[in-house]
Amino acid sequence: MNSTRQSAGNEVGERIIISIDAMGGDRGPSAVVSGMARSQRKNPDIGFIVHGRRDELEPLIARKRGLGDVCEIRDVPDIVTMTEKPAQVIRNGKNTSMWSALDSVKQGEAEVCVSCGNTGALMMLSVVRLRKLPGVDRPAIAVLWPSRNPQGFNVMLDAGADIRADERDLATYSAMGVAYARSGLGIERPRVGLLNVGTEEHKGRAELKLAHEHLQAASVDSDFDYVGFVEGGDLPSDRCDVVVTDGFTGNVALKTGEGTANLIADQLREAFRYSILSRLASLLALTSLRRLKKRIDPRRVNGGVFLGLNGTVVKSHGSADSTGVSAAIKLAYLLTQQRFSEKLAARVASAPNLPQTATTGGNGGSSE
Amino acid sequence: MNSTRQSAGNEVGERIIISIDAMGGDRGPSAVVSGMARSQRKNPDIGFIVHGRRDELEPLIARKRGLGDVCEIRDVPDIVTMTEKPAQVIRNGKNTSMWSALDSVKQGEAEVCVSCGNTGALMMLSVVRLRKLPGVDRPAIAVLWPSRNPQGFNVMLDAGADIRADERDLATYSAMGVAYARSGLGIERPRVGLLNVGTEEHKGRAELKLAHEHLQAASVDSDFDYVGFVEGGDLPSDRCDVVVTDGFTGNVALKTGEGTANLIADQLREAFRYSILSRLASLLALTSLRRLKKRIDPRRVNGGVFLGLNGTVVKSHGSADSTGVSAAIKLAYLLTQQRFSEKLAARVASAPNLPQTATTGGNGGSSE
Repeated sequence: MNSTRQSAGNEVGERIIISIDAMGGDRGPSAVVSGMARSQRKNPDIGFIVHGRRDELEPLIARKRGLGDVCEIRDVPDIVTMTEKPAQVIRNGKNTSMWSALDSVKQGEAEVCVSCGNTGALMMLSVVRLRKLPGVDRPAIAVLWPSRNPQGFNVMLDAGADIRADERDLATYSAMGVAYARSGLGIERPRVGLLNVGTEEHKGRAELKLAHEHLQAASVDSDFDYVGFVEGGDLPSDRCDVVVTDGFTGNVALKTGEGTANLIADQLREAFRYSILSRLASLLALTSLRRLKKRIDPRRVNGGVFLGLNGTVVKSHGSADSTGVSAAIKLAYLLTQQRFSEKLAARVASAPNLPQTATTGGNGGSSE
Repeated sequence: MNSTRQSAGNEVGERIIISIDAMGGDRGPSAVVSGMARSQRKNPDIGFIVHGRRDELEPLIARKRGLGDVCEIRDVPDIVTMTEKPAQVIRNGKNTSMWSALDSVKQGEAEVCVSCGNTGALMMLSVVRLRKLPGVDRPAIAVLWPSRNPQGFNVMLDAGADIRADERDLATYSAMGVAYARSGLGIERPRVGLLNVGTEEHKGRAELKLAHEHLQAASVDSDFDYVGFVEGGDLPSDRCDVVVTDGFTGNVALKTGEGTANLIADQLREAFRYSILSRLASLLALTSLRRLKKRIDPRRVNGGVFLGLNGTVVKSHGSADSTGVSAAIKLAYLLTQQRFSEKLAARVASAPNLPQTATTGGNGGSSE
C-alpha cells in the first residue's frame, strides 16, 4: 500500500504539494496560473510542481506576488490537445505536461494532480501511469452535485470513466464514494444510494439488484448507511450523500443537470430583460441573484476526481477560468491534507468482496 | 392496420372523442373533471367518454356548465391504486376505470386515452389490452422536454417504459419520435439525435454504434434529419428535436432534469426571501417570474405518451391538478385531430428493418 509515498507532502509543518498540469485547458496556462495564485493567497502552506513550457510559465508566475517562491517548474515541451485520441497520448505523450504531472504523483512527489486537459486522455494516462488500486477493476470519476444537504453537495460516481459497471464495480464505487464524502465533504457517516428507475426493490437491471443486496449487507456495522435505490430526482436531494451509478448513466445525468441549469439561467435573464419594470426589479434583485449564482455556479464545484488509482487526479473543466482552477486546487489541497489517497486505498482493501457472477463484465440485466 | 378504428371520432364535423380514466390520480376525480371542463371551454368540438364511479362523477360534471352535454359516463366500480403491482391489475383489474378507459380505445370509440393513474400498471395494461403495433418490440414513453428550439420543446423517448433497448428498438423509437414530433409539435422535418456519452463516432455501447449506422442510412432521402450522437446537455438544446435513448437512461435523465429545476426554483425563492430589499425586488419581478414559471411549469408539459401500441395513451402525472390534466387532454385532442395513431402505425410499418444481431435482446456493449 506504499504509505510513505501516499503521505508525501503531508507532514506537519511541511508544504502541501500539488502537481499541476498547466497546459491542457482551453484558456491556456494563464488561467491555471491565476487559479494557483488565488489558492496560494488562501492557503499559504501550499506548494506546486508545475508542468509545462518554462518560457511561458515563468513570466506568468513572476507576475503573481509570492507565487514563484512556492513553485517548482518542470519544463516539458509538449501539450495534449483537446482532440487527441487517448491511445495516441499513451504512445507519444512522454514529453507532455499531462504525463509529467502524473509522474510527480507516481514518484511520490505529490499525492494529487490537477489538470484541465482532455478527459479521455487524462483518464487513460492516469490508469496506465498510476495503475489501478488492488481490488479496483474500474476506476471512477466522482463529481460534486449541488444538493439540499447541509454540506451543499452530494457525491455522484461514476460520472463517465467507464460506460459499464457490474455489481462488483458498483460496490467498489460505493466504498470509494464513502471515502470521498468523508475526506472531501467532512461527512462522518455518509448515506449511500444506488441510482435506479424506481425505489422498489424489484426494479432495475440484474447488476443493480445484486449490488443492492450486497450494500444492504455491507452497511451493517459499518461507518456508512445504505438508503437503497434512489432516482434521478434524488441527485440534488437530501436523501443521501453518495449516489452510485455506472458511468454511462452518470455522464448523461451530469450533462442533463448542467444543461437544465443553463437553460433556466438563460430564461431567467430573458425574463428580467422583458420590460422596464422587470429590468428595474432585476437591478434590485441583483444581490439575491448573485447569491443564487454563487450557490449554483458550476465553477465552484469544478473538479471531477478520478478514484481507484494509486494517487488521486482532479480533473478541472477544460474551459475553467481562474475561479474554476482554484476550486479544483482547493479540493486537491483538502484531499492531500486529509491523506485521502491512503484512506481510500485502505477502505477498498478492507471492503467485503462480492463474488463474481454470470452477469459480471456485461450489462445483461433482466427487466421486471 | 384497421384504419376505420384508428380514425374514430376524427371525421369532419364530428366531435373529437377522448377516453378519460377519471379515477386514478392522487387528487381524485375532481381535478380530472376540472381539467376536462377547461379543455372543453377551449375546444368546443371535444367529447369525452369518462370512466369511473357514476355516483362520484355525475355531480362533479353537473357542476361544470355544458360539460354534461359532451360526456358519456361509463360506470365502473374499481380503481387502480398507485401502489398496486402491474401483474395484479392484469389479473384482477377488469372492473377498474383504467381497464375500461383503455377498452374504449381498443373498441375504436376513441383514438387516445388519458389517465393520471399508476404508470407501471397503465403501461402493462396498455400493452396487454391494446397490443403492440406490428414491427414494435418495445413500446416507449415519449415526453416533451423544455428546450431552446422555436417550438419550445424537444421529444425524448424512451422515458422509462422498458429498462433496455437494443439497436432495433432505438431505430423504432426514432421512427415513433419523428411521427410524434410531426403531429404533436408540428415539425415538418424533425432532427433526430441519439443520446450518448460523447459525440464522437467511436464512443458508447455496441447497440448505440449499430443504431447510429442504421439511422445515418435511414435518414437519406427521408423526411427527417439524423444529427448523430448527442449528450445530456443537448436534451434542452436546439441541436435536435427528437432525442432517442433506452428507458433506463431516459428515466434517470428526466427525473434528474426535474430535480434540478425544482432545486433551482427553491433556491430562487430563498434568495428572494433573504432581505427586505430582495423581497421588494421579487414583488417587482413577479411578472417576470410568473412568465418564467409558465414557461418551465411542468404541468404545462404534462403528459408522457405511450407509443407503439394500437392506439395512443397519454399518461398524466399522478399529482396533476386541473392545469396538468387539461394539458394532457389538449395533447390527446391534438393527436386525435392529426390522426396520429394511424400515421405512427404507417411509419413504423414502412421503416427499414435493422437485422437482428448477436447483441439484440441484451445490453452487452463493448467499451472504447
